Amino acid sequence: MPGKGVNHDGLPNSQASSQRTYKSIRRTNLTINDYVQGILQKDKTILARAITLIESNSPKHLHLSQEVIREILPKTGNAIRVGISGVPGAGKSTFIEKFGLYLLSLGYHVAVLAIDPSSSVTKGSILGDKTRMETLSREQDCFIRPSPSGGSLGGVTRKTRETILLCEAFGYDVILVETVGVGQNEITVRDMVDFFLLLQIAGAGDELQGIKKGVIEISDAIVVNKADGDNISRAKLAKGEYSTALHYLSPSTPGWQSRAFTCSALTGEGLPEIWRIITKFKEIVQENGFFSKRRNDQIMTWVNSMVHDYLISNFYQNKDIKERMPSLKKEVLSGEITPTNAVENLISIYNQLNKSVTE
Amino acid sequence: MPGKGVNHDGLPNSQASSQRTYKSIRRTNLTINDYVQGILQKDKTILARAITLIESNSPKHLHLSQEVIREILPKTGNAIRVGISGVPGAGKSTFIEKFGLYLLSLGYHVAVLAIDPSSSVTKGSILGDKTRMETLSREQDCFIRPSPSGGSLGGVTRKTRETILLCEAFGYDVILVETVGVGQNEITVRDMVDFFLLLQIAGAGDELQGIKKGVIEISDAIVVNKADGDNISRAKLAKGEYSTALHYLSPSTPGWQSRAFTCSALTGEGLPEIWRIITKFKEIVQENGFFSKRRNDQIMTWVNSMVHDYLISNFYQNKDIKERMPSLKKEVLSGEITPTNAVENLISIYNQLNKSVTE
Repeated sequence: MPGKGVNHDGLPNSQASSQRTYKSIRRTNLTINDYVQGILQKDKTILARAITLIESNSPKHLHLSQEVIREILPKTGNAIRVGISGVPGAGKSTFIEKFGLYLLSLGYHVAVLAIDPSSSVTKGSILGDKTRMETLSREQDCFIRPSPSGGSLGGVTRKTRETILLCEAFGYDVILVETVGVGQNEITVRDMVDFFLLLQIAGAGDELQGIKKGVIEISDAIVVNKADGDNISRAKLAKGEYSTALHYLSPSTPGWQSRAFTCSALTGEGLPEIWRIITKFKEIVQENGFFSKRRNDQIMTWVNSMVHDYLISNFYQNKDIKERMPSLKKEVLSGEITPTNAVENLISIYNQLNKSVTE
Repeated sequence: MPGKGVNHDGLPNSQASSQRTYKSIRRTNLTINDYVQGILQKDKTILARAITLIESNSPKHLHLSQEVIREILPKTGNAIRVGISGVPGAGKSTFIEKFGLYLLSLGYHVAVLAIDPSSSVTKGSILGDKTRMETLSREQDCFIRPSPSGGSLGGVTRKTRETILLCEAFGYDVILVETVGVGQNEITVRDMVDFFLLLQIAGAGDELQGIKKGVIEISDAIVVNKADGDNISRAKLAKGEYSTALHYLSPSTPGWQSRAFTCSALTGEGLPEIWRIITKFKEIVQENGFFSKRRNDQIMTWVNSMVHDYLISNFYQNKDIKERMPSLKKEVLSGEITPTNAVENLISIYNQLNKSVTE
């Protein structure tokens, strides 16, 4: 569990005990240059260690990781970043495994990252280990990394975004970012990818009733998986419903009409079509200028959201604010104090604290 | 323009010059008790002055207004709060005028508040004066208040929410909160009302393409206005499309199936049906418990958003942060520094400042 306790080498303590048996490069402290050169020379072990460094919550490692990222930044940005989401049961693992293998067969290098910002609630719902995608994980040109845990500045979002950069510098040209369809996950992922794919399955009747607010609207494509065997006609029906819904909403990406498709991760049918769509998407959006505009916007959104996260968590994690909250809530809801009074009260506690800390 | 400059009595400076001609109660400084009693005794002049007090951006007035609100809080909460939004041209003014008159004819007391949080961009798009609703504004049992300007803690949102409370204490039992359909306005209003009504008109073809992301999903009803004369069949067609869209999305309010309707504010047709729907809605949602749950949630969301606003505006309005921002953006987008570095840089500037201020 990176981040819980980390030794001097950026490795989790749980691994540190067996460290003596690692090959020599694992035993030494790596310099910035070691990391950078290792990544650029496609050393997977170094890539994995660099990601572990990013995932560390220690301030010292944060400093080092930022130096590494700054060095590799010029080599980043060349991959297509694809977000893949869907409710548990939609068949995300099988889809990514088969889709990844298809991309490898075309000669692409594929990195699969999992992100689950709300993981404290949905423990185990996303790739805990690589065994979920057994065949894919054995491929030389593929890299699979499970979800980081939260913790320090920017949390899971920062760690995933920075991991994308490392993977791009390494030379992966398709980055698949998987997330489980709960909470705000899709929005978080939409903000770090170029193309957002929503994986669904056919259910009984009114398909769309169960879909979370806003998720259809951020999708560049909806793919109904498990369109095989007895399920084909139901999948086609569902595809029709999603198409209608997409038609009714303003597009997720300017200049791009989002559409629905069917596929079978089991038989592989439909996967080539999905890749064709993603390629077409990239072409159109690069030409209309939105590709780079979105990436720049994403960077600034990221900066601002890290600032917000810092300010807000700094506030709510404050001991005195925490202590005051339950009683304050009671007072506000019972009408003893006004909401504005409550806020003034919190702010005065907070400002008083800042004062005493820095005095 | 309340909030720009305010005199000692909570009145805008622009009015202060002619203050000598006001009747005696306007010339004196009102006490907390004057405000509270005036409101509870249905003195419209006092209500208007209390709202002006709320709209003041001076800290002294903030203190006084909070005392007034605290006193009247037990008398609040009894109205149904209805948000009404729609793009410019949807006929919001005429709709509210006719709908308001209809409610008055049923014996209700109606307050109309306008809110336009993004008013710096859309100046003049929302009720600048009462002449937009001439007949309604002359009615004794109706109160119309144009959009406040932003400024202090919580800005427009706080001012509108607190005005709702004053109007409820006064005895208005239907509060119509009007907003223009731009930016985040609908979300802001959805968060302060019980029922959210989206006013639309029939256009040419694909009605829904033009609708902003997420607005359909927060609507408890969509009303296609101007269903009169030659326009009836087009309005009915549009209603059909909205119905389909609503059917596809999860409901805005648990236990309530949002639907689409037509009406003509010109002829008054359809207005009774809309009121019947709102009444039915209140019944159902009170019974399933979501009515009070939503109101409590809205209060805590409000408190938290005021805290966030304070923290974030305090940060970005800081002189040194402001000065650093443009160069920082350039450095991040050109890859000179990493986004995380940028955030660290901003935070260290900010913390340094807090230190020097409080030392």
